[in-house]
Amino acid sequence: MTWLAIPQDSPFGVHNLPYGVFTAPDQPGRRRIGVRIGEFVLDAGAAARAVGTPSVLLDADSLNPLMAAGRPTWTAVRAALTEWLTDEAHRPAVAPHLVELAAVELHLPFEVADYVDFYASEHHASNLGRIFRPGSEPLTPNWKHLPIGYHGRAGTVVVSGTPVVRPHGQRKAPADPLPSFGPSRRLDIEAEIGFVVGTPTGLGTRVGLDGFREHVFGVLLLNDWSARDIQAWEYVPLGPFLGKSFATSVSPWVVPLDALEHARVVPPARDVEPLPYLDDRDGEPWGLDIAMEVSLNGQPVSRPPFATMYWTAAQQLAHMTVNGASLRTGDLYASGTVSGPEVETRGALIELTWNGENPVKLADGTTRTFLENDDEVTITATAPGPDGTRIGFGEVTGRIVP
Amino acid sequence: MTWLAIPQDSPFGVHNLPYGVFTAPDQPGRRRIGVRIGEFVLDAGAAARAVGTPSVLLDADSLNPLMAAGRPTWTAVRAALTEWLTDEAHRPAVAPHLVELAAVELHLPFEVADYVDFYASEHHASNLGRIFRPGSEPLTPNWKHLPIGYHGRAGTVVVSGTPVVRPHGQRKAPADPLPSFGPSRRLDIEAEIGFVVGTPTGLGTRVGLDGFREHVFGVLLLNDWSARDIQAWEYVPLGPFLGKSFATSVSPWVVPLDALEHARVVPPARDVEPLPYLDDRDGEPWGLDIAMEVSLNGQPVSRPPFATMYWTAAQQLAHMTVNGASLRTGDLYASGTVSGPEVETRGALIELTWNGENPVKLADGTTRTFLENDDEVTITATAPGPDGTRIGFGEVTGRIVP
Repeated sequence: MTWLAIPQDSPFGVHNLPYGVFTAPDQPGRRRIGVRIGEFVLDAGAAARAVGTPSVLLDADSLNPLMAAGRPTWTAVRAALTEWLTDEAHRPAVAPHLVELAAVELHLPFEVADYVDFYASEHHASNLGRIFRPGSEPLTPNWKHLPIGYHGRAGTVVVSGTPVVRPHGQRKAPADPLPSFGPSRRLDIEAEIGFVVGTPTGLGTRVGLDGFREHVFGVLLLNDWSARDIQAWEYVPLGPFLGKSFATSVSPWVVPLDALEHARVVPPARDVEPLPYLDDRDGEPWGLDIAMEVSLNGQPVSRPPFATMYWTAAQQLAHMTVNGASLRTGDLYASGTVSGPEVETRGALIELTWNGENPVKLADGTTRTFLENDDEVTITATAPGPDGTRIGFGEVTGRIVP
Repeated sequence: MTWLAIPQDSPFGVHNLPYGVFTAPDQPGRRRIGVRIGEFVLDAGAAARAVGTPSVLLDADSLNPLMAAGRPTWTAVRAALTEWLTDEAHRPAVAPHLVELAAVELHLPFEVADYVDFYASEHHASNLGRIFRPGSEPLTPNWKHLPIGYHGRAGTVVVSGTPVVRPHGQRKAPADPLPSFGPSRRLDIEAEIGFVVGTPTGLGTRVGLDGFREHVFGVLLLNDWSARDIQAWEYVPLGPFLGKSFATSVSPWVVPLDALEHARVVPPARDVEPLPYLDDRDGEPWGLDIAMEVSLNGQPVSRPPFATMYWTAAQQLAHMTVNGASLRTGDLYASGTVSGPEVETRGALIELTWNGENPVKLADGTTRTFLENDDEVTITATAPGPDGTRIGFGEVTGRIVP
């Protein structure tokens, strides 16, 4: 379809076209918007100028202006990019603005406004309930009535590849008489999918379930690093704080929502009647069949299935705004840890190892309960595209440093 | 001291000089940095140009560039402003750039990066523990070991005077079989003091107790509006979300930390040994003797004493960064509800009315448990200045609309 020589089955074919921000060696200080195609990055602003349609939205150093422009503009820009990369007539103008992916540095693709983290996997929430509150109901009474969420630290959202410094803090096991201070001994991951808001809203307005497509620009991978010992001691009664705020890593490519049209699936049956503002049974289904894989030091340890999530991203957006809270361009909200029903589909080490009782065995003969220094965690994912293709998300990776 | 005709006992004398952002009728679309003196606002950028020292930090549409410039610049700018307003020689150049306060519109004075809310009053936390968890210890086991905090929604921080739309959401009293959806019936206030971060830090670094002065630019009043019914149903296990995220109001004037030198007091004795990173017994004390007043429809209903807070803002900053979380210019963190030991010093209606059992009587013969539509809440405060003067914070006010 594209005139570019890329494999037929590339997860970065012309049906994907995710957006990122890169610098290249020729101008190392200049951040530019890039669109990934195969193992290349199209310098979008330069290509637009070359074909004679310069765009201030593409000639920017972050995705925020494009994201703020709204759905009709996103559709038009995506159509233009597709034409440039598929119409042979554009090849002479466009081809000089393809840069090899291996030669560029990728940056945080947008300025994060507010960051919210949800808790939408029934398997994950049930596992954590069993681990933390043995003997009581695994799910809290509110869990099936509303998508539980909380605000995280937008300022420590970092791009894939950023080293993660092991956080220090107060740790206290139930048997300890007093808390002690030091590096976290129970450093964990949470494999999640993140949703990026483009179109803003004013204070006092709501976005209904049918507003999801209008407001959400795209989707990425997210690792919500979690220090379980710090979190366990601090989180009652106001929720996680320092156990999470030291770093949240995201993949550098924002997959346009339009690229996920073939990934849409009906979410799992809900066994509690949703209130009308959350009732998606008569509307567009926004379950997404994203197949995730978590690797530890290069070895796959889990394959979380996003299609199993109880609450969809459309329901989360409706809930987040039902009290009149406004949206800003760059708001990022994450699904919560993605865990399926089987052990090998759990998206956090605390579940995979059942609170450290069943260590994960690695190929080098070592085992892990939680992360050690120099451990590297990588999350990748793909989703169905048209005509049997796959849509790639790339990866979010991070290495623990002392 | 100043050549300006303002009352000797003005809380906005030359020892205060808080910063804000205003528009005036002559150029209604142009936001400018203003410095309050008496009942006037000095157009700081214009004054700097008039005295021959133009400044890009003062010729800005928000305080962020000045805040980012760091402590030595803050000191120099404050010295210059003081000189302009006290030295008769500057009067001809400076006086034309004084605008009457009554003629200007005041705006959110800085772009909020991350917003964190603490929970630092022992009286408030104990009262809420008694109300919400009767029969168990009022304070959770971690309370005296660390300043409990959580992230709030930066995008819904609004300036004083912005109407507050009563939020809708899920409400469920313990006796209700199911949650219902509708407007909050238990809309409350939280009278707080907010601290504004100027100097940023990098990821993986900490700010110790002695870094407070270097990183905190100034102080303001904050009303953390709270929908108690929404909050009570949603907050277990990940903390408050929609019960708070609909609006947080701040006063338009940021009082420089330097103006509060005479307000510094030793905080209350702590009955639990603090870990070293929180131990302020050998350093500068950062208790602040700020006298607050809460009025409902013009009638004072509470006088919260900030000096009674268990955790200081310096300890909160040290805690917030001890895990390596970075700071950005514009980070805002709030003290948590300020409540003293006596009933009439409690900073939230839920405490003042003891969960609605003892309604507050108003002068018009009506009573209040929680806020009704058209109710207006105003928080004001002053602190000791030099030579028997007072430092004014102005006010943060908001009216409830349906």
